[in-house]
Amino acid sequence: MQMTEQKRPLILVTNDDGILAPGIRALIEAVAPLGEVLVVAPDSPQSGQGHAITIETPIQLSPANIRDGVEAYECTGTPVDCVKLATNVLLKGRKPDLCVSGINHGSNASINILYSGTMSAAMEASLEGIPSIGFSFLNYSHEADMSTGKSISGKIVRYVLENGMQDALLWNVNIPDMPFDQIKGIKIARQAKGNWVEEFQEGTNPRGTKYYWLTGKFVNEDNRTDTDLKVLEDGYVSIVPSWHDLTHVKALASNKGIEGMAL
Amino acid sequence: MQMTEQKRPLILVTNDDGILAPGIRALIEAVAPLGEVLVVAPDSPQSGQGHAITIETPIQLSPANIRDGVEAYECTGTPVDCVKLATNVLLKGRKPDLCVSGINHGSNASINILYSGTMSAAMEASLEGIPSIGFSFLNYSHEADMSTGKSISGKIVRYVLENGMQDALLWNVNIPDMPFDQIKGIKIARQAKGNWVEEFQEGTNPRGTKYYWLTGKFVNEDNRTDTDLKVLEDGYVSIVPSWHDLTHVKALASNKGIEGMAL
Repeated sequence: MQMTEQKRPLILVTNDDGILAPGIRALIEAVAPLGEVLVVAPDSPQSGQGHAITIETPIQLSPANIRDGVEAYECTGTPVDCVKLATNVLLKGRKPDLCVSGINHGSNASINILYSGTMSAAMEASLEGIPSIGFSFLNYSHEADMSTGKSISGKIVRYVLENGMQDALLWNVNIPDMPFDQIKGIKIARQAKGNWVEEFQEGTNPRGTKYYWLTGKFVNEDNRTDTDLKVLEDGYVSIVPSWHDLTHVKALASNKGIEGMAL
Repeated sequence: MQMTEQKRPLILVTNDDGILAPGIRALIEAVAPLGEVLVVAPDSPQSGQGHAITIETPIQLSPANIRDGVEAYECTGTPVDCVKLATNVLLKGRKPDLCVSGINHGSNASINILYSGTMSAAMEASLEGIPSIGFSFLNYSHEADMSTGKSISGKIVRYVLENGMQDALLWNVNIPDMPFDQIKGIKIARQAKGNWVEEFQEGTNPRGTKYYWLTGKFVNEDNRTDTDLKVLEDGYVSIVPSWHDLTHVKALASNKGIEGMAL
């Protein structure tokens, strides 16, 4: 009699900090015991790339050596390119059971989901019908201890593989920068309204041309108690179920007036 | 007795096809009679840049000569960078009354809002509290006749300056590729669910390395009658009131189960 082998779930891993970042190494360690893992990540840091795709130039893929038993590639494109290449070229015809992106070095709570390559890669997979989770750890340093991030992401991935996601295909997970045993729990939350108060560092380059270098401070403009920023502040992991639909539903009715304008 | 001069509205103009594209020229012609105009646009094409920002390198601004009486700059950064530089450096302390982005060469209906530099620039201005409109014309060619796009965008801008927007601060406007007198009207619409069926053109470069070049076909997966794709197909200009909040509201309740998971 032959034993039926249970098929292990296929997990696609990507990020935006590049394949060498400690965050993606921690995520791979967390998910490797849970399924078959394919890694396709940028060959260089791609923070702030948002949902950028590479149209005007070709991109390249090279095999990368990351962990025994894990197939991995580095890609010259953006995080979204990585997902498109994985699903359309490397996995032609086979759909991952889950896509995980991160662990990002720094928060992607609130409107940072819009700028984030980590979240855009996860969003791209969700557009293709793949349940996807972006993980971010609230410490920008590449020297930060990723053990809390690794434990939390492993537990969340296991939960989703066992229980699925409901309605949404995309979770934006942010993890507070504290020791694992101090995390109070997990909260489902809303995307907070916040904003960057920008400043540009101005200077003059060696050729005498003025330049501007982006810097800024993030400001929470939301006083609701169920937002990602609030639950993070309270010591919880935040999960914002997210999606691709930017329609402002309330405004559909209130902006109808323009339909009567004579052309 | 001195006449009181009515202050003209300040209109910020940007795009993602670059300052030399015919689309932004048409948009500038359309809005120049309606207010004081400041143009800050990328110095090269930035299609598909999504909400990318430039973090790792400085960016530069140079004055550009576009039209008598119009202050214009070209910027080495992304469309979102252009808006940040305009509001934080060039207009320090003065808020535009309106931001317009485009006219994009090609559709930004449905999920293309996510990939679009045109729409991300408008989104960025809306995050800063500025009413913003992204205009796209359903013809990718830079040789296309932009007269319909110019007429429609001029009329919509005039309407918004006179009547304002309700609830939303961001409109995604798409304009069918047809003569002006054949446009049936304007419809407020929802973002359609659609997707790119991707293919990569594969090849080998002169150094013998394999490359992949993105191509694909867009597929409408939505059969609702009030979507942007549907009203465009029917010959109407579509306006999707849009915003920054990606929270999947329905999924907030249905995903609560994970809050009970033991850490």
